[in-house]
Amino acid sequence: MPESNFMTVLGERIFELKNPSLLGLDPKLEYLPEYLLKDLARAEAGAELEAELARALFRYNEELLSACSKIIPAVKFQMAYYEQYGIAGLRALQDSIGLAKSLGYQVIIDGKRNDIGATAEAYARAFLKESKTPFGQSVPAFQGDALTVNFYLGEDGVKPFADELRTSGKGIFLLLRTSNPSGKELQDMQLADGRKAYESLAERCAAWAEKLRDKSEAYSPIGVVVGATYPKEAARLRQNFPHLFFLVPGYGAQGASAKDVAVAFDRKGGGAIINSSRGLMNAWQALGYEHREFAKATQEAALAMRAEFSQFMKF
Amino acid sequence: MPESNFMTVLGERIFELKNPSLLGLDPKLEYLPEYLLKDLARAEAGAELEAELARALFRYNEELLSACSKIIPAVKFQMAYYEQYGIAGLRALQDSIGLAKSLGYQVIIDGKRNDIGATAEAYARAFLKESKTPFGQSVPAFQGDALTVNFYLGEDGVKPFADELRTSGKGIFLLLRTSNPSGKELQDMQLADGRKAYESLAERCAAWAEKLRDKSEAYSPIGVVVGATYPKEAARLRQNFPHLFFLVPGYGAQGASAKDVAVAFDRKGGGAIINSSRGLMNAWQALGYEHREFAKATQEAALAMRAEFSQFMKF
Repeated sequence: MPESNFMTVLGERIFELKNPSLLGLDPKLEYLPEYLLKDLARAEAGAELEAELARALFRYNEELLSACSKIIPAVKFQMAYYEQYGIAGLRALQDSIGLAKSLGYQVIIDGKRNDIGATAEAYARAFLKESKTPFGQSVPAFQGDALTVNFYLGEDGVKPFADELRTSGKGIFLLLRTSNPSGKELQDMQLADGRKAYESLAERCAAWAEKLRDKSEAYSPIGVVVGATYPKEAARLRQNFPHLFFLVPGYGAQGASAKDVAVAFDRKGGGAIINSSRGLMNAWQALGYEHREFAKATQEAALAMRAEFSQFMKF
Repeated sequence: MPESNFMTVLGERIFELKNPSLLGLDPKLEYLPEYLLKDLARAEAGAELEAELARALFRYNEELLSACSKIIPAVKFQMAYYEQYGIAGLRALQDSIGLAKSLGYQVIIDGKRNDIGATAEAYARAFLKESKTPFGQSVPAFQGDALTVNFYLGEDGVKPFADELRTSGKGIFLLLRTSNPSGKELQDMQLADGRKAYESLAERCAAWAEKLRDKSEAYSPIGVVVGATYPKEAARLRQNFPHLFFLVPGYGAQGASAKDVAVAFDRKGGGAIINSSRGLMNAWQALGYEHREFAKATQEAALAMRAEFSQFMKF
């Protein structure tokens, strides 16, 4: 067994910083302040454009990561925003992951990956472990501390990650209850046994999670994504599954309030981490800051978010 | 509307080459013949390792793509195998997509991506469309002709792709019925209305697909993934949903025979494309070829696969 379970480490860091917030870094060039785009505007297509684009995206993340490192315990990188910029975006991601780790953040990769067998093992190497060449050389990819996983393919799609968690101290979050309106179409299907699909699936997730939990630890290294936009359901899931750590999207931009979200916490105010992406990244526009002060605005918004949630935590 | 619908173009190409096979390129360094690994063995960590690794993976794909371009109509790149090698893998992927297109292949990206709203739009830019900088520069990413998509998040996760298909002539395949044993856990849940979950979900997929189908065309640009390992279910889906093009995994290495797979075809032998990854890639080892002749072995295996399936096609 690893010395530390990802969810335990994450939980400790949350209480250290008295903050269950998760900094979602989902950059679009349209969000970047003008001064970071200056060199990109002049770049020639090809290697120069790639280098300048990677640099602009990384510098944006760097400013935000630096501004919040004493305030926010963990960062979530949404893969789509990096993939959309090809190699440049993924180079920026790789550098941002390295920086985030060195600043003490727990790093969650939001890839919602899903596949089986050898393919799932390849995803585990891409995002949690690492690849080796047949000559023993390490190949750097996008190694975070945890990855989001979609379990539509059943246990075959979860086991290759779980095998990795047994020995590595890393974590995964299974996509259980999403925050978007049409998530219901599949997740709320009415089953013959009277339950909704997500209720049955929650039990399956809990069973997978329980297999990996060391009984001395409150939370399994397998957690779940539970959207904040359905507070009643989230409250019931929290009650029924005390050993599942929740990653909670939907706060802020998607409409859920801090009170909606608070049902995800356990009695001590632990067991959940609350994502904010646009609400934190774009604070400078919302708060009317000058573009060169965008990171300061995010820091201010992060402090306000911490204040909102720390009232639910018991120390 | 675009001039051509992806599934129509794919179907025409299948009949041109009299072959419904899909070449799955899922490279692992362990599969590569020794002569392609020579320079990698000596590479220093850092930029040199990255460049040599990208070159080895690309040269492997290049040989296979060249050997099969007159035989096989389409290629499927499984993202996990490229992501596991970080920037090097993704550079090789980018170059391989470009080469595949120039050789006349239809290019399917197997990413099983899933997210909503702005994030799904970013995935569409990464894999189907392209990103632009605010200064109008094009950013090359991993643009294929079609992408596999997981619809666990409901229509919110499908619509951003569908919007793109309306104007681009590209396609998506929704992950409906996977070929792995535990796919049943979620996909076969018994619903209150007497159906299994996948049967209800199939109707939803068909409804999304029908919205995008030009009535002059047999198939919608939204197709579905239907594993070959459940032939009875596949036959029923084929009968009930005549306008959904099927991408069929599970042939060969996963145990389904050509007869099992044949139920996916429509009456003319169209409407389905059958993937083979390891069966084609690793033919040199199975057929006892020398490592320098690995691509010739794949070509031979591709001809044998074509012969097996062409009996089901009517010209």
